[in-house]
Amino acid sequence: MLLCICIPVIFLITVSSCSKNEPVESSSNINILYLRDYGAIANDGIDDVRAVKKALADCKAHGAKKLVFEKGQYDFYPTFAGERYCYISNNDEGLKRIAFDLKNINDLTIDGQGAQLMFHGFMSPFVLEGSNNIKIKNLSIDYYRTFHSEAIILGYDADGMDVEILENFPFNIHGGTLLFTDGQKQIGELTTVSKGVTYGSSHMLEYDTKKRETAYMVKDFYFRNINGFPAKKLEGRKVRIRVPGLTGTIGNTMVFGPNHRKHPGFVVSDSKNTSFNNIILHHAGGMGILGQRSHNITVDSCKVTPSKGRMISVTADATHFVNCTGKIALTNNLFENQKDDATNIHGIYVQVIEKSANNKVIVQLKHQQQHGFDFMKPGMELELVRGKSMITYDTTIVKHVNRINKEVTEVTFDKNLPANLEIGDAIAEIRDYPEILISGNIIRNNRARGMLLNCRGKTVVENNTFHSPGAAILFEGDSFFWFEQGGVRDCVIRNNNFENCLYGVWGKAIIDVKAGILEDKETSRYNRNILIENNTFKIYDDLTLLNAYCVDGLIWRNNTVEKTEAYPKTGKSNKRFVVEYSNNVQIDSQNDY
Amino acid sequence: MLLCICIPVIFLITVSSCSKNEPVESSSNINILYLRDYGAIANDGIDDVRAVKKALADCKAHGAKKLVFEKGQYDFYPTFAGERYCYISNNDEGLKRIAFDLKNINDLTIDGQGAQLMFHGFMSPFVLEGSNNIKIKNLSIDYYRTFHSEAIILGYDADGMDVEILENFPFNIHGGTLLFTDGQKQIGELTTVSKGVTYGSSHMLEYDTKKRETAYMVKDFYFRNINGFPAKKLEGRKVRIRVPGLTGTIGNTMVFGPNHRKHPGFVVSDSKNTSFNNIILHHAGGMGILGQRSHNITVDSCKVTPSKGRMISVTADATHFVNCTGKIALTNNLFENQKDDATNIHGIYVQVIEKSANNKVIVQLKHQQQHGFDFMKPGMELELVRGKSMITYDTTIVKHVNRINKEVTEVTFDKNLPANLEIGDAIAEIRDYPEILISGNIIRNNRARGMLLNCRGKTVVENNTFHSPGAAILFEGDSFFWFEQGGVRDCVIRNNNFENCLYGVWGKAIIDVKAGILEDKETSRYNRNILIENNTFKIYDDLTLLNAYCVDGLIWRNNTVEKTEAYPKTGKSNKRFVVEYSNNVQIDSQNDY
Repeated sequence: MLLCICIPVIFLITVSSCSKNEPVESSSNINILYLRDYGAIANDGIDDVRAVKKALADCKAHGAKKLVFEKGQYDFYPTFAGERYCYISNNDEGLKRIAFDLKNINDLTIDGQGAQLMFHGFMSPFVLEGSNNIKIKNLSIDYYRTFHSEAIILGYDADGMDVEILENFPFNIHGGTLLFTDGQKQIGELTTVSKGVTYGSSHMLEYDTKKRETAYMVKDFYFRNINGFPAKKLEGRKVRIRVPGLTGTIGNTMVFGPNHRKHPGFVVSDSKNTSFNNIILHHAGGMGILGQRSHNITVDSCKVTPSKGRMISVTADATHFVNCTGKIALTNNLFENQKDDATNIHGIYVQVIEKSANNKVIVQLKHQQQHGFDFMKPGMELELVRGKSMITYDTTIVKHVNRINKEVTEVTFDKNLPANLEIGDAIAEIRDYPEILISGNIIRNNRARGMLLNCRGKTVVENNTFHSPGAAILFEGDSFFWFEQGGVRDCVIRNNNFENCLYGVWGKAIIDVKAGILEDKETSRYNRNILIENNTFKIYDDLTLLNAYCVDGLIWRNNTVEKTEAYPKTGKSNKRFVVEYSNNVQIDSQNDY
Repeated sequence: MLLCICIPVIFLITVSSCSKNEPVESSSNINILYLRDYGAIANDGIDDVRAVKKALADCKAHGAKKLVFEKGQYDFYPTFAGERYCYISNNDEGLKRIAFDLKNINDLTIDGQGAQLMFHGFMSPFVLEGSNNIKIKNLSIDYYRTFHSEAIILGYDADGMDVEILENFPFNIHGGTLLFTDGQKQIGELTTVSKGVTYGSSHMLEYDTKKRETAYMVKDFYFRNINGFPAKKLEGRKVRIRVPGLTGTIGNTMVFGPNHRKHPGFVVSDSKNTSFNNIILHHAGGMGILGQRSHNITVDSCKVTPSKGRMISVTADATHFVNCTGKIALTNNLFENQKDDATNIHGIYVQVIEKSANNKVIVQLKHQQQHGFDFMKPGMELELVRGKSMITYDTTIVKHVNRINKEVTEVTFDKNLPANLEIGDAIAEIRDYPEILISGNIIRNNRARGMLLNCRGKTVVENNTFHSPGAAILFEGDSFFWFEQGGVRDCVIRNNNFENCLYGVWGKAIIDVKAGILEDKETSRYNRNILIENNTFKIYDDLTLLNAYCVDGLIWRNNTVEKTEAYPKTGKSNKRFVVEYSNNVQIDSQNDY
């Protein structure tokens, strides 16, 4: 699979003689490889995929400790990239062309030294799989053509909306359909098998052009399974979108979201000890950093932020962690303008669809973007959870796993299952739930929520600034829609600034402690032991600060509430606190306006 | 991967005591397995996927020679089907759920005994891979919901067309877009990750409702990369399709073709000695039978024909063979109403995109539906072909193959390449080109052409009846669009009835000998030694019987031409014979009207 375009000499140099931009430990046996020696020359506009592939192969073969860029821009095209079928939780599975395919590589630091990595077309920047002790730092990621598109709203009526599509978001109207493209002219006759390159879009969301955030209280416009929108060409880059019911403010920016999450920026799969430092993610076709079944992930001093005046950075969550263990640290980052939450740290529930023997069930991954998420292994302890009450009623040990397809697996246990097991029950992994530290981050101007805290390890959220259109902090977990295992056990939220959150529709409270409990609300308690103290809430209206549902143990103390004029009043008079079906909730007095 | 739902006793019985429906050879050691013993009960409406899987596993494990159905209907759903990523030439690659996954199974007859196999949803009926001596007979294949849809044309104007969508083709209009569906109600809130089940469509073609064939001289309406059509709901099942430029005859049937070929009926891949007998293919989401890199395939007494009053049978070619060897026999079949040609038997050209050493090139599979078609192996002889003239200028032997991705491969040869090798040249396999027998078939009412003869083995086409809207017989081959290797060397076309062909737009002559030769027309001769004799051509106008381009050796003799009134005149006066850039073409006198 390796292309020997150039055969570089591998330099075995002590770090002291060669590290240019930073002091490193004075070991004498660290190998450093330089990408320039593989033909990756900054700013030459030439595809660097083959150079990276060869360099990574040498890193692996020779156990090099560091791979170093020089400053400048590097370009990556799919033509010569290797490919692999990847199942990436909460993103889209598929056969991916990958620029940095870090499979079974250990103990490697990739130091961009300020390099700008520019991706062209449908390809994935970094995928780690079974790789341990990988550090990635000092580089930025962007795409020449983004997976989303942007336009200025010109007006609307009952039948549709007129927009002017911004430069750098090429499009075409063909057969009455607006399709976003790569700007290349489609050549060749149309036939039964014609497929051009399109940047498929299936949803729209309005942004405030001046404030550079989702417009006040706007809703998503969603359309299932489409690739483009019914439309008519007007003059220049103006287009009439013939979709009834669209609304918006003239001059605001309409963002056309991609109909996929095929190319997240960094995927960390089944890996240990991964760290990201000083990474700038300007764009990705999916989430920014996605960790799954991995141990210890640190994201420090990174930025998820748009480039080139764009409204959107990555097209989904900035970060997201699924069935991870050890420690997850998000420290000193800026997460802005991503098209979904800043993070979500959770497990996955499968649903029991058939009891095939006394010690055997068939389970299904129900959420399409969890398909292929094979987490059960022999010897693993699982919890059995009543589907509608979310009550864990037993635990069991996996003996054997028989994967039928990406959705359905037959699991054999080491003992008979309890007689009260029901079809529709949920099963999840009991694991070394990671300890979470979310500290010193700025979260702002993204779609939806801030941090989704759904992890049973000790969770500390401190010294962050939130400016989220929805809930700044959301706790959830259900086994009927998202199938995400949550339920904190020890969570501290302190010394944060919540600045004018809830200016959008994604949440009922700034701190929203939810759970997908449909039955046995009187007894089921999903989230436990939450301490919320010493935070400042700047609010523009009488908003709900805290919603608590089916919680056991919550203390609210020493928080300050300040009034602002940042947004129009909602017109609703909301209670400061909504507490339902909960025990041991203590709301202390606070400084309120 | 096996589900032990029921553990049947395997009956080891001599055939004489057990075969019910037909006499078989009186061997005493043939094992026959019965699907009913695995829980597949006819007409019970229950998913039979698991029964088939277990039965096939037992066939493999015990070397059974025969797997037998009882008469009646069997149902197959994707939920519990195994899956595999398949590259299927001229169809669409992807991760497929497969009902009959015949991988590395040998010496097996599957006898349906008249069973009707009914498929539900997105799944592939039969995939053979690396399986030898497989016989499949006496069964039919249909889909509960077809991959295409049909509607009656009510009228049109410059902005669009009104149609009434027929029952059994469920649809939905959502956000101004007509989407064909599975008829299930979409439930759950719309979110960033919402995806329902749609039967995506990207092209339309008008059919004459009474004649049950493509309407006279209609063209395809193609729209790249869409999944549904801009539309507005009218009353009942009536819809206004808001696509400018659509035309059609009121009362005719508009067929909405699927935007994929994901689920061909039978895929035969890298297998030897496959036979199909008395198979009825009512529908498939792609081609009917696709053979690739396989040796000896027989299709006898089969029918590709619609069910339930539908206009369309399979949604692409009835049969199609790529880089096959040995013998291909299509005998006594009915191929009707499929949405593309009856067959095409060809090889594949890759294009040279880079010369990476004196004995090494990088080649690319250019046609998207050929991606992943890895045909080059060490020791294989290849021809080097000038891209624009199609002249084979050298041959070479493969030493090493390095697959970079599904499109791009680096090939090392056992000697240096000729100095005149150019970027853009084509490379194809020199193989044991199959001997072709196409005899006793009826081909009618399909889209496009009849038989595409692009094989260098002895090719005999006799005693067939053609009623094709395009060329009944087409020879082609090019290295700029389809990248299909053709060029007959010994082809006989005799005793066929060509009945009112060329009533559509897919061809300029009833027998159309083309070649993608763009340069050196004076010297390049692609198809050779074609004998056309004793055929009857019934024509409704002054049509071109034969077009010959860059041919060396063609004899036309003893053919009869009869005049009919089947269609309106074209208004053009065409020459009976068009011969250009050809040598040794002999057109003898004929009985003409």
